[in-house]
Amino acid sequence: MPDLDAAGDFLYELMAPLEDMMLLEAALIQLFIIFVLARIFAEIFTRVGMLGQIGEILAGILLANLMIGDWTLASGLMIEFDPHEPSVYHEIFEVIANLGVIFLLFFVGLETKVSELRAVGKPSTAVATLGAILPFILGFMVIYVYEVHIVPHPDWFDHALFMSAAMVATCIGITARVLTELNVMDTIESKIIIGAAVVDDIIAMIILAVVVAVAGATAGAGGINIADLVLSVALAVGFVLFILFFCAYCLPLLRHNHRCRLAEKGVVCDEKEWSLKIDPFPLAIIVCLGLSAMALSLGLAAIIGAFLAGMLFAEYAQEELVPKIKALNGFLVPFFFVYVGMRVELDGFAPLIPLTIVVIFLAIAGKYIAGIIGVMGTDKSLGYHSGEIVGAGMSPRGEVGIIIAAIGLTAGAISREMYSIVVFMSIFTAMIAPSWLARSFKKKYTQDVTESAD
Amino acid sequence: MPDLDAAGDFLYELMAPLEDMMLLEAALIQLFIIFVLARIFAEIFTRVGMLGQIGEILAGILLANLMIGDWTLASGLMIEFDPHEPSVYHEIFEVIANLGVIFLLFFVGLETKVSELRAVGKPSTAVATLGAILPFILGFMVIYVYEVHIVPHPDWFDHALFMSAAMVATCIGITARVLTELNVMDTIESKIIIGAAVVDDIIAMIILAVVVAVAGATAGAGGINIADLVLSVALAVGFVLFILFFCAYCLPLLRHNHRCRLAEKGVVCDEKEWSLKIDPFPLAIIVCLGLSAMALSLGLAAIIGAFLAGMLFAEYAQEELVPKIKALNGFLVPFFFVYVGMRVELDGFAPLIPLTIVVIFLAIAGKYIAGIIGVMGTDKSLGYHSGEIVGAGMSPRGEVGIIIAAIGLTAGAISREMYSIVVFMSIFTAMIAPSWLARSFKKKYTQDVTESAD
Repeated sequence: MPDLDAAGDFLYELMAPLEDMMLLEAALIQLFIIFVLARIFAEIFTRVGMLGQIGEILAGILLANLMIGDWTLASGLMIEFDPHEPSVYHEIFEVIANLGVIFLLFFVGLETKVSELRAVGKPSTAVATLGAILPFILGFMVIYVYEVHIVPHPDWFDHALFMSAAMVATCIGITARVLTELNVMDTIESKIIIGAAVVDDIIAMIILAVVVAVAGATAGAGGINIADLVLSVALAVGFVLFILFFCAYCLPLLRHNHRCRLAEKGVVCDEKEWSLKIDPFPLAIIVCLGLSAMALSLGLAAIIGAFLAGMLFAEYAQEELVPKIKALNGFLVPFFFVYVGMRVELDGFAPLIPLTIVVIFLAIAGKYIAGIIGVMGTDKSLGYHSGEIVGAGMSPRGEVGIIIAAIGLTAGAISREMYSIVVFMSIFTAMIAPSWLARSFKKKYTQDVTESAD
Repeated sequence: MPDLDAAGDFLYELMAPLEDMMLLEAALIQLFIIFVLARIFAEIFTRVGMLGQIGEILAGILLANLMIGDWTLASGLMIEFDPHEPSVYHEIFEVIANLGVIFLLFFVGLETKVSELRAVGKPSTAVATLGAILPFILGFMVIYVYEVHIVPHPDWFDHALFMSAAMVATCIGITARVLTELNVMDTIESKIIIGAAVVDDIIAMIILAVVVAVAGATAGAGGINIADLVLSVALAVGFVLFILFFCAYCLPLLRHNHRCRLAEKGVVCDEKEWSLKIDPFPLAIIVCLGLSAMALSLGLAAIIGAFLAGMLFAEYAQEELVPKIKALNGFLVPFFFVYVGMRVELDGFAPLIPLTIVVIFLAIAGKYIAGIIGVMGTDKSLGYHSGEIVGAGMSPRGEVGIIIAAIGLTAGAISREMYSIVVFMSIFTAMIAPSWLARSFKKKYTQDVTESAD
């Protein structure tokens, strides 16, 4: 017969692994439920012709805001972040969601070739630059007016910074899909849009770097330390420019030398081919995780590192990496969009609806005006309708804007309300863009037909 | 000027997100270091012609056992599990490593087609069955002798159960690679090996299910409750058989009906084609996570669910899923093998070296005898050398054996020493097999040539 001490020891032995087992079991069940919900909503949204990601965000909003009795599903799953009782499951979920956004931005970078940047003409550059400046100014102004004059808030400056930064980045995914469906990919307007979107991504990353640096410096001791600020901004911009420079000059040079050495050995290889002996996929993961961690350590956002890591591979291993990173993202990214939705707070959002409408209007207006001025100002042969097409094509905001707002939220630089506004702005611009784009294409090209018929 | 309360609030606001930021930064740095180490070792091992996974396990052994001053690298990274001070980073790492092994076993299942099982001839079935029974009995005996007569241990029964279960499963990856390299894939011996490996995997899953059930039942209240035991075993075997039955009969029937309905609408599609409108990849992730969680809830190992989930997709979506699951595993699986290595304890292992050598010897002998009896007993036309080839081909143990031992370790059913023995057994059998296999192929086929020349 076992005595009581032994029974106690035995029970301890029994419970310790049980708790361990339960970690995995609970984590699996949570990840399963989140993934299933995300996919169901994504599937429904895709079938009615909208972006699957919007469905995933909505799944997250429901998880965290739909009350079942006194509980939301998120709190039942122990994934809702509660500062007083943080749960390990929330932290696991947060890390997986963040891995998702890191590889998502790696993917965006992977589709941004520095060599194509040079080929992008004047209109694209003008549209991208204006399309960054105008929404930034409009976003800053609206928060200034609202939080200084209407509902005063002491942190209006940080709010305005992140809000306006979140209004900059175009989500090219939606536009590219619509252009493909309309079969107009080889029109001049489509080329301007695609080119502008590439420049736009890089500008957004630089703006994000600066905004994080400024917010970090102002958060210091209640006042702005100019030296810190300058240092942070210089560091941020330096990091981005260094990688851009590396992509544009050092990488081709290294490749050229490597190819020359191979040629000496009698090995002939295509200029665009990945001729290193190392499998690019694990190397890409290493560079992506490494630059993301480095960006964080420098006080930048992790996604800036991930985006730049993607750019490093865009030129030489794009074809090999795209399907693999897509597969990885197929698993990780839905967790990120659910995480995005979970942080939206519907409770008490009603009074903010007018502000949200103004923000959405300005977000669209900024890109619209940038499109018209950018196109008509640089290419006299293109008319107002071409400008409208480009403006419509640049208007949807997507993951990058939301990510910028999420970084602001995590850093405490914007409130949950401001964050929710950005999420809704992204959702609505993404929903409006496809039909607007299709209509403006029709206007232009039926008119062209009429004109040439005259 | 802010008062003290406001300053306190401000500080709280400032610290809360800081801690949050640090979670991500620390997690990224840890994952980065683990992944880099794993890949460096994998790369070195692959270049000298060994399995990359062995390198990854070795990286884990070094992480947890190499002391730098008073610290190991694993404890510095906060990923070493310390029951008195569990760290969230260990738990994140553990969940990611376990996701890795789940998708790894999904992949193994994905390559196991039920339809091919029926085509496997008598020799394969005989080799697989004997190759499961013999190592199991030998493993059980050696632990019985060691822990009852030489170094008595009260838990010898559980130890013996898991040790012998871990000695069952063949790692077909190594053998398949060697067979391809030797260019002997279409010999009768190769076909027997491949067929036997498929049956072997399924037998290993059933043995694992039974072992976990038995260990769970005996762990109950210090004694064995026969009713509980029978129920657990029945549940475990029933779960596995149900999925096998579903794969073999229900799935083809469902597919047939679906194809008929499509045919009525005038859509013709290939029998093996994935004709559902849903993308199989997210569906595969859902089924994999779902069945893994369900297996855990039934008291089985998560990998049994994952393996069976893979089998569900093997027949109809294998081609589409293989590259995607491979990419996902390219990121997740190295974490699992490092995790495997990290739990090996070198400290105080020296006295166990004789036992380890005996275990390795018996692990090889079991498969060797099974190969010779299985082949010569079922096919009179095949001689001793064919039996030796099959025995050599079945001898490497790999991930499945280690996983079984890891489950035993997590459940407290085997000690860390026994676990380390299994890891070394897997490493050594995997290292010996390739040259043994090549030599025995040479023996057989040069002899055949001599004989036909006579």
